[in-house]
Amino acid sequence: MDYSKFFSADVPSFLRSPVREIFRKVDLSAICSFAGGYPAAVTFPMADIPGLTARVLEKYGTKALQYGATQGVPELREVIAARYGVPVSQVQITTSSQQGIDICTRVLADPGDIILADNPVYLGALQSFKAYRANVMSLENYLRMAGDAPSVGHPKFIYVIPDFNNPSGRTMSLQEREELVRVARELDVLIVEDSPYRELRYSGEPLPTIRSMAPERTLHLGSFSKIFAPGFRLGWIIGPEALLEQIYVCKQCLDLCPPVFDQYLAAEFMGSGALDRNLEKTIAEYRRRRDLMVSLLEKYMGEGVSWTYPDGGLFLWLTLPEQVDTVALYDQALAAGVAYVAGSFFYTDGSHRNTMRLNFSFVAEEKMEPGIRLLAQLIAGRQVIDS
Amino acid sequence: MDYSKFFSADVPSFLRSPVREIFRKVDLSAICSFAGGYPAAVTFPMADIPGLTARVLEKYGTKALQYGATQGVPELREVIAARYGVPVSQVQITTSSQQGIDICTRVLADPGDIILADNPVYLGALQSFKAYRANVMSLENYLRMAGDAPSVGHPKFIYVIPDFNNPSGRTMSLQEREELVRVARELDVLIVEDSPYRELRYSGEPLPTIRSMAPERTLHLGSFSKIFAPGFRLGWIIGPEALLEQIYVCKQCLDLCPPVFDQYLAAEFMGSGALDRNLEKTIAEYRRRRDLMVSLLEKYMGEGVSWTYPDGGLFLWLTLPEQVDTVALYDQALAAGVAYVAGSFFYTDGSHRNTMRLNFSFVAEEKMEPGIRLLAQLIAGRQVIDS
Repeated sequence: MDYSKFFSADVPSFLRSPVREIFRKVDLSAICSFAGGYPAAVTFPMADIPGLTARVLEKYGTKALQYGATQGVPELREVIAARYGVPVSQVQITTSSQQGIDICTRVLADPGDIILADNPVYLGALQSFKAYRANVMSLENYLRMAGDAPSVGHPKFIYVIPDFNNPSGRTMSLQEREELVRVARELDVLIVEDSPYRELRYSGEPLPTIRSMAPERTLHLGSFSKIFAPGFRLGWIIGPEALLEQIYVCKQCLDLCPPVFDQYLAAEFMGSGALDRNLEKTIAEYRRRRDLMVSLLEKYMGEGVSWTYPDGGLFLWLTLPEQVDTVALYDQALAAGVAYVAGSFFYTDGSHRNTMRLNFSFVAEEKMEPGIRLLAQLIAGRQVIDS
Repeated sequence: MDYSKFFSADVPSFLRSPVREIFRKVDLSAICSFAGGYPAAVTFPMADIPGLTARVLEKYGTKALQYGATQGVPELREVIAARYGVPVSQVQITTSSQQGIDICTRVLADPGDIILADNPVYLGALQSFKAYRANVMSLENYLRMAGDAPSVGHPKFIYVIPDFNNPSGRTMSLQEREELVRVARELDVLIVEDSPYRELRYSGEPLPTIRSMAPERTLHLGSFSKIFAPGFRLGWIIGPEALLEQIYVCKQCLDLCPPVFDQYLAAEFMGSGALDRNLEKTIAEYRRRRDLMVSLLEKYMGEGVSWTYPDGGLFLWLTLPEQVDTVALYDQALAAGVAYVAGSFFYTDGSHRNTMRLNFSFVAEEKMEPGIRLLAQLIAGRQVIDS
């Protein structure tokens, strides 16, 4: 039976995550994977879970297993509001921060609308934007096009990961943040500030969130995936109440409410101080891994290879000599036992084929040195073939 | 700041759930609520949770807190496949069966498309259909219109709850199922079979699922909300692999994967036999409640009031004398301490204002008699006013 005639007009625009496709086919434990953005299992507060579970059952009883409010359970909204200094009415819990991106896109964008995004851009965001058939471009390109042809169309929102960007590892400077807010106000567009890594800073000083600089036009997306555990699928949106009200109604259709038991676990974890204790250990772990990866790159990578130095988050970004094609290199690398994500997947035009994203949080630490050495050899070999 | 200019074209079609709006404003414990579709807290396997949690942590360790596969964790897909006699490749786990409805609509329907649905229809489904700006009509109306005007348009799918319908409490007969499948094949449309209550049968014999009668064109939606606990937000879709493949890609944008910890709990609960033991108790509990509600209706309701006798599920459907308007009666009922859902909310045209949906699973059992007595008095009083 041919099902293609049944599909909606959105379906041909669906984009598969190349990362999830890799994970579908490859046994991660058998290779050295710098692909993906999985947190290190060692950062999960395993020892806390039985106690958290017992406390949630004791405190909330059957409420913890019942349907909950669409906005999220009050206890979780309250601890988030207190931690980030906003009123509870400005907090909506989401079933993952990916849902946060998807729901913002659904509430704000129509097919053909322009969304201005980081370039390179987070793949999960690109998937949501494409699935709604939005037209994704960089702010820089838009401003140039709008200068040349003012009829290019008005953008619906700007999407950014200002802190420890996925995939680039970059952090926006204060001047860049101020400029972003200035442009957003001038264009009169909203900003979706995706902030899953902000609490994972290993060096340097925190810069103000975009939300704090433009609260009237920013939807700030938070996530428990990197500060608690991704298996609970919980995130949040902080934003103006008038925007959250439509997001709330939309969320009724999506899944009625976020997972209730998991929300109470997260509320206990954050509210009791266990999150901060665990975060300290997580930061120490990731700082060591970042430093290790940077030192390995310095040790093994040949001339013409450069990388970003991330002050936090889970990724760094490699730029290779012009002639090295990381898409062409990929199968060879996987066969040799090392995985990465080709940088061109994060560009809407498929350009920058001489770049790659490396993750330093997931791979077993003892695999990092052989993995980077192997990668350096493959790159050097490819350099010979391709030149 | 006026945000309305930022919203997508879908937003004006968003429909608020009147049930969730009631729950936002009213303290449920203070009134007698026959509104909502919450399961009885007494059916939750509270005593099993600590043991399930411990077993999941022991068996799966950090995997239980990590990101999981978009299709769901293999262990849960396997127990569902075994229980319902289908290959694992035909099972997709969803983050609630509401997400199942939403994702099917997103993958199959475009704005203006016709969806043929139960009439009255489940509100959560209506919300998803409306939010995608689909044109919802009953199969009966469609066939009549198509006979009169063949240009009426081709429907995208038929949505039905064949067992213990929400809101009507009705179960489709074998002949009705056969006729539905015949028409679906003749029109060449898909069927979305929503089946959250099927395992909750209190009397009569099970009838075949629509899926078993037309596996090539049916997406069957299941739910853990009524057989485990709704706080875990887990459901599943059983369907042809070619359809699930697009649903899988769509789900990547929605939330990457269903809650992992909760999935392992559900897999342990279903796989260990604890689900079946709990289900037996749940069925006994709900059978008693259904019988109690029916006997109370017989005792208190005046002439001209009739109701469906549900063989399972959580609801029955009241039809009052023509002149009684349940929408007009609602505020008075709430003030007097009893809640229901006006039947007209389940009709796309707002008709049938002399009907209401009553839920017998959630309200405390000792409140049922005073609640039904009060409702009968209000209806009798209204009958006098309105006539």
